[in-house]
Amino acid sequence: MPPESKTGRVLLVGAGPGPVDLLTLRAARAIEGAQALLYDALVSDEVLALAPAQCLRIQTGKRAGRPSMRQETINRLMLRLARRGLSVVRLKGGDPSIFGRVGEEQAFLAAGGIESEVVPGVTAACAAAAQFGFPLTHRGEARRVMFTTARLEAGAVQCDWAQAADPQTTVAIYMGAAASAQVAARLMGAGRDPATPAAVIVDAGAPGARFLRGDLAGLGGLVPPGAQGPVLLVVGPVAALARPQVEELVQAAA
Amino acid sequence: MPPESKTGRVLLVGAGPGPVDLLTLRAARAIEGAQALLYDALVSDEVLALAPAQCLRIQTGKRAGRPSMRQETINRLMLRLARRGLSVVRLKGGDPSIFGRVGEEQAFLAAGGIESEVVPGVTAACAAAAQFGFPLTHRGEARRVMFTTARLEAGAVQCDWAQAADPQTTVAIYMGAAASAQVAARLMGAGRDPATPAAVIVDAGAPGARFLRGDLAGLGGLVPPGAQGPVLLVVGPVAALARPQVEELVQAAA
Repeated sequence: MPPESKTGRVLLVGAGPGPVDLLTLRAARAIEGAQALLYDALVSDEVLALAPAQCLRIQTGKRAGRPSMRQETINRLMLRLARRGLSVVRLKGGDPSIFGRVGEEQAFLAAGGIESEVVPGVTAACAAAAQFGFPLTHRGEARRVMFTTARLEAGAVQCDWAQAADPQTTVAIYMGAAASAQVAARLMGAGRDPATPAAVIVDAGAPGARFLRGDLAGLGGLVPPGAQGPVLLVVGPVAALARPQVEELVQAAA
Repeated sequence: MPPESKTGRVLLVGAGPGPVDLLTLRAARAIEGAQALLYDALVSDEVLALAPAQCLRIQTGKRAGRPSMRQETINRLMLRLARRGLSVVRLKGGDPSIFGRVGEEQAFLAAGGIESEVVPGVTAACAAAAQFGFPLTHRGEARRVMFTTARLEAGAVQCDWAQAADPQTTVAIYMGAAASAQVAARLMGAGRDPATPAAVIVDAGAPGARFLRGDLAGLGGLVPPGAQGPVLLVVGPVAALARPQVEELVQAAA
C-alpha cells in the first residue's frame, strides 16, 4: 500500500442555499461519507443532518452567538484532520468558488501536501432567481450578470461601481444588508438610473425566503430591519420580472 | 376536485454541467417524475436516462446534425403538453436563470395560464472552477465575477466591454469559442492588461473536460480548433490559480 493512502483528503463542498434537495447528488454523498465536517454559519441543519452520527462536527461560522473561527485556524484544522487520515468535508453555503475563500483554502492545503477537491453548488443568486421566477439574464434587457459583495471596509463600500452602471447588467450583491443604501448611492453616482428595478431577497432558496421589490433609489429602505438570514440585493430590469403571485404570497406570509 | 388539477405544469430545470451527480436532488426527482421532457443539446445522455421509460422525449437543441427548434415552437409545445395535463420538464444545461431564456419561457407560459417553476442548477463557470481548482473570486485579486456571452451578431461582438476592464473582475464568457480573439481584442482595447491570465475550458464539468491556460493576448489562439462541447473563456488573475497537476493530467490525456 503506498504511503499516500494513509493521508486523508479534503472536499470543499458547496451546500447550496439551504434546502437539502438543492444539494447536488455529489455533495450529498460527500457529506454522507464525511469523517470530519467543518461548516459555515449559512449551512442549514437539514444539510448537516446528512452526516453520519460518528462524524466529527466543527462549526466555523458565527452561530448562536459564538464568534467566527479565523480563516487561519480553519486552514490549520483542516490540514491536521486530513493528516490524521480523515475524510474531511469543508461545507460552505452556496457555491465554494463564489465568495467562498476556496482559493485560499486550496492553496494552504496544497502547500501542506494535502489533496483537495471542490464540489460545486447552487449559488444564492441562482436560487433566488429560481424561487421568485425572475431570470438573471434576459434577452434585450440583461445581457450579463455580475456577482459582487458590499462588505464595508472602514465604514465605506470600497469597490469601484462604475462598471456596474451599464443598464444591461444585472448586479447581484451578496452580503448586502448593511451597505444597501451606500451601494445604491454609488451605482446612481456611476450613472445607473434611479428608477432601475431592484429587489432585496432575504434567505434566498430557503422555505421562509422573502422577496421585497422596489427601485434603485429606494434600495436602502427595502432591507427589513433586523432581517434574519443572508441578504442578497439584485439591481436590474430583471428584478421587475419576479412573479407577483409568488411575491404576494411571500409578503402576505411575512 | 378543482378544475386546476387537470392542468399540467412546467418545471424549468437546470441540468448542471453534465455528470448526473452534479444535478441537484430536486432536479433529479423532477426528471424522474416527468411525463414530457424537452431538452437542450447540452444535456447529457446520463441525465436524460433518469426519465421514466414512458416519458415523451423531445430534443430542442442542435444535436446529431438536426437543427435547433425555434424558441417560439418550444414555447408553444410546452404550453400544449401542459394543457393536456402532463407534467412537463424543460431541461437546460447549467442553471436556467443564466443565459437560459427562462424569462421568456415563464412569461409565455404565464400568459397561457400555465404554472411554471424553476429548479436551479450548477452553472458552467462554477463547474469549471471546481473541476480545475481555481476560484471565481479571490481575496485581493478578484473581488467580483461577471458572466457574459460572446455571441456574434452580424459577425461582430456587440457588447460594451469597458466594464469588464477592471483588473479585479473575473470575466467568464459563455459560448465564447467563435469570438475569443474578438473578445480579447475588445477587453485589451478597454484597458485590460494583455498579460492578464486567461483560460479556455472545453466541456466544463464533464469527465473529458479540457483546460487550456494562457494570457489575454493569446486567448484567441487557445481555443482548440474543432473543439467538441461548449467553450467557456475565463479572464482574470484566478485563471493562473488552476492546479498544475490537474491541468497537466488533462493535457497529457488530450
